Amino acid sequence: MEDVLIRTHETVSLKEPILVAGLPGVGTVGKLAADYLREQLGTRPLATIHSKFFPPQVYVNEEGLIRLVSNDLSYLKAKSASDHDLLILGGDYQGISPEGQYELTERILNYCNALGTRELYTLAGFAQGHVVEKPRVLGAATSPARVEAMKRFGVVFSRNDPGGGLIGASGLFLGLGRTFGMEGVCLMGETSGYFVDPRSAEAVLKVLTKVLGVQIDFSALEAKAKEIDRIAQKIQEVTGEGRTSEPSNPSREDVGYIG
Amino acid sequence: MEDVLIRTHETVSLKEPILVAGLPGVGTVGKLAADYLREQLGTRPLATIHSKFFPPQVYVNEEGLIRLVSNDLSYLKAKSASDHDLLILGGDYQGISPEGQYELTERILNYCNALGTRELYTLAGFAQGHVVEKPRVLGAATSPARVEAMKRFGVVFSRNDPGGGLIGASGLFLGLGRTFGMEGVCLMGETSGYFVDPRSAEAVLKVLTKVLGVQIDFSALEAKAKEIDRIAQKIQEVTGEGRTSEPSNPSREDVGYIG
Amino acid sequence: MEDVLIRTHETVSLKEPILVAGLPGVGTVGKLAADYLREQLGTRPLATIHSKFFPPQVYVNEEGLIRLVSNDLSYLKAKSASDHDLLILGGDYQGISPEGQYELTERILNYCNALGTRELYTLAGFAQGHVVEKPRVLGAATSPARVEAMKRFGVVFSRNDPGGGLIGASGLFLGLGRTFGMEGVCLMGETSGYFVDPRSAEAVLKVLTKVLGVQIDFSALEAKAKEIDRIAQKIQEVTGEGRTSEPSNPSREDVGYIG
Amino acid sequence: MEDVLIRTHETVSLKEPILVAGLPGVGTVGKLAADYLREQLGTRPLATIHSKFFPPQVYVNEEGLIRLVSNDLSYLKAKSASDHDLLILGGDYQGISPEGQYELTERILNYCNALGTRELYTLAGFAQGHVVEKPRVLGAATSPARVEAMKRFGVVFSRNDPGGGLIGASGLFLGLGRTFGMEGVCLMGETSGYFVDPRSAEAVLKVLTKVLGVQIDFSALEAKAKEIDRIAQKIQEVTGEGRTSEPSNPSREDVGYIG
Repeated sequence: MEDVLIRTHETVSLKEPILVAGLPGVGTVGKLAADYLREQLGTRPLATIHSKFFPPQVYVNEEGLIRLVSNDLSYLKAKSASDHDLLILGGDYQGISPEGQYELTERILNYCNALGTRELYTLAGFAQGHVVEKPRVLGAATSPARVEAMKRFGVVFSRNDPGGGLIGASGLFLGLGRTFGMEGVCLMGETSGYFVDPRSAEAVLKVLTKVLGVQIDFSALEAKAKEIDRIAQKIQEVTGEGRTSEPSNPSREDVGYIG
Repeated sequence: MEDVLIRTHETVSLKEPILVAGLPGVGTVGKLAADYLREQLGTRPLATIHSKFFPPQVYVNEEGLIRLVSNDLSYLKAKSASDHDLLILGGDYQGISPEGQYELTERILNYCNALGTRELYTLAGFAQGHVVEKPRVLGAATSPARVEAMKRFGVVFSRNDPGGGLIGASGLFLGLGRTFGMEGVCLMGETSGYFVDPRSAEAVLKVLTKVLGVQIDFSALEAKAKEIDRIAQKIQEVTGEGRTSEPSNPSREDVGYIG
Repeated sequence: MEDVLIRTHETVSLKEPILVAGLPGVGTVGKLAADYLREQLGTRPLATIHSKFFPPQVYVNEEGLIRLVSNDLSYLKAKSASDHDLLILGGDYQGISPEGQYELTERILNYCNALGTRELYTLAGFAQGHVVEKPRVLGAATSPARVEAMKRFGVVFSRNDPGGGLIGASGLFLGLGRTFGMEGVCLMGETSGYFVDPRSAEAVLKVLTKVLGVQIDFSALEAKAKEIDRIAQKIQEVTGEGRTSEPSNPSREDVGYIG
Repeated sequence: MEDVLIRTHETVSLKEPILVAGLPGVGTVGKLAADYLREQLGTRPLATIHSKFFPPQVYVNEEGLIRLVSNDLSYLKAKSASDHDLLILGGDYQGISPEGQYELTERILNYCNALGTRELYTLAGFAQGHVVEKPRVLGAATSPARVEAMKRFGVVFSRNDPGGGLIGASGLFLGLGRTFGMEGVCLMGETSGYFVDPRSAEAVLKVLTKVLGVQIDFSALEAKAKEIDRIAQKIQEVTGEGRTSEPSNPSREDVGYIG
């Protein structure tokens, strides 16, 4: 079979669509953010991506129906004809081998490039190793102009973080995107790294929606954040874990996916 | 060499053959069922499948003759010209890497597709983590119509099982089968997961034979089940293991092959 | 680069050459035997095999010269024009991944097939897990006729050994050799599995040379066997290990290369 | 995507350029040496190498700008028209799988071959397992003439070191270089293997610069060596480690990269 199989559901003509990519990773921040954005904006399905670089797995839903693990692209036409359209990439997995990561990223970028994409945003979590009350959004970008632009939206570019760089799709989309001449930014919501973190996803989306000039309702995401808070609270009560108040850097040797 | 090498032994014309696939997995349920069905129905060998995605291994039989590990397809002509013919897939191994799983499944589906297959059944075990006196047959399917049809044969579609989806060939055949336009069902016999389980295989086959409208003699399988019961009984006497009577869900994180 | 790179040193025309393959494995028996046979017969280098399925490694000799790890084929013209010529395969490694094993074996067989090979012998060790005073030579073969022929040379075909089959090149050469229409035999010298075992290699070669109708001097191999005996003896004195006298079957689950 | 992607920044005509390769490995000796040489000689960037055989990773610099992990080639025109030009290979990683090592090495050698390279030097560390006050430079080469030539520059060719050969890029470049008809030498600076070792890199560079007939200023490297000494000293004071004074051979079974 083809290593990466992209099935297009609808032929569309898009206006230099901006790609937003949020795949599973630290705190599930990127995936939460991309899925929520897709839902709130009511994007339309564009393509489904299967690959032998995903696990050989199907999900079974409550009705007993199977679905092969995948990534998927959906799109949104801009309200104004002069604006960029939008592409959102989400999915169940990142590629499960280094080579798979490269192949998947390159194939998806190639597909978006053919649709006219010149600009992309990857969404991710940044593990701080301690509970983060008010998650900041850290950034990394492909050009100084992008760095300056993001700072105006409150994105923090820290001298030391992320120290070891970005491992996984969120960084690779930017790195390989350069070979397609694309400019891009990675937006990383701070998170403990111990829980699924809707609050961090919200922080990321608050920046991103301003950057994209779209508006969404955050109430469902906030409700989910409060639910996770309650669970985390209970676990902390039982185990005494996670109450570290002093900031501590995560290990530089950490090899888990950041994004 | 070719990644997957399918050698056809006989050129046959089949009438929209239904594929039944049972490969090694949890409790060896799928393989036991497919092998037993093949034997009872007296299917004829159709093709042998070698692949570099299998281990580099030969088996040596009691006469000292070697046989390279393989999967194999056999077929059965339906008694009535209006009925579907049958294809049974069995073998020594599933692909031993995720990529190998995808490649093997896709190649075998492609081969069956060329023979006219539109419908498939995968047989598997479902590990409950405790001794199951009367194994139910759980199901997953590609369409609501299939789910409803299977319920009429007593197949259980549980809201929670299998929670993490299906990992391995039994799910992948359904998932990739969809890309060939095939409809399918996975039949999973409940099993402890600790023993080879002919009783679970029998439960699966009792459903499957009704679905296919074929009749077989179950006595040899029942004899084997009793033999395993005796062995399991002895091990339980010695170790005190496996006597848990209350139902317990297997871990969702379990990454072993289900099918 | 090509996955497997076979560089031919000399263009020769061979008369249905019999392939003898001895690569590193249990007790280094197969490699010891093939290397010794090559040396004693004074074979000529035919081809060197490099591959990305070997480790990325060079050896450095005492003069400081490097040599990239490889397999290699050498040949010997038969003394009588009516006899088969001989090909000997030796080398530093077997392929280090399952896929690499298949690719290497298939490529080498393909090469030998082009030279006219119809028959092959693979040499290996068979781990008994205890010291073997007088190693027998166990066999596995591709046809009943070969089994019978080997029995006449004293090769033992045991109902139970090797129980789990043969894992690695010695079995795979026979298994894939069948797809080229080649007939073959695996000769396995019993060995403890704890030491490099020249005595087991000698037992294998005593059979093989009779089968091939060639004569070699065994004194150097016997000297090496005595040296290993002395070392083993000393280790046993110190540790008390390896003195088990009762026969015990090696574990069926053993996944180490047999040959 | 291509397995190995070499992007050329500048089209240059070079005079039989000598390749110097220093990638991360034991004590980071090879990389330290190559990077320092490049900096001191003021080489110009020639090509950037991306590959799916590197980790899926980007680095983020202090300004927040990302850079995809890579290897890179830079060049230096010789001062005299009759001299060889120079190519220096450095980078973030060696290939992270055996197959990746072969592919990357072969592709880079192929690229250099097209530029006229006939000769190469690989720089590496050699782990002694104990603190080395005055690191010697050990050698391995592709021909006796090279061995003799290197001895005149003080390179040590030891009967026993490196016992298990060279694993990784530094050896592979020589081994595969032979298939391009290239001659080469591996220069290995002795090092403990416990620290990044600029002193060992300096020893290697002192030999290499004489061989190449170039001159560089060593003061910055010496300053770095003293800094590491201080850190090592402190660690030794705390742990009592690393003070072994008697020479000890590193384990032959050591499978870590040497170069």
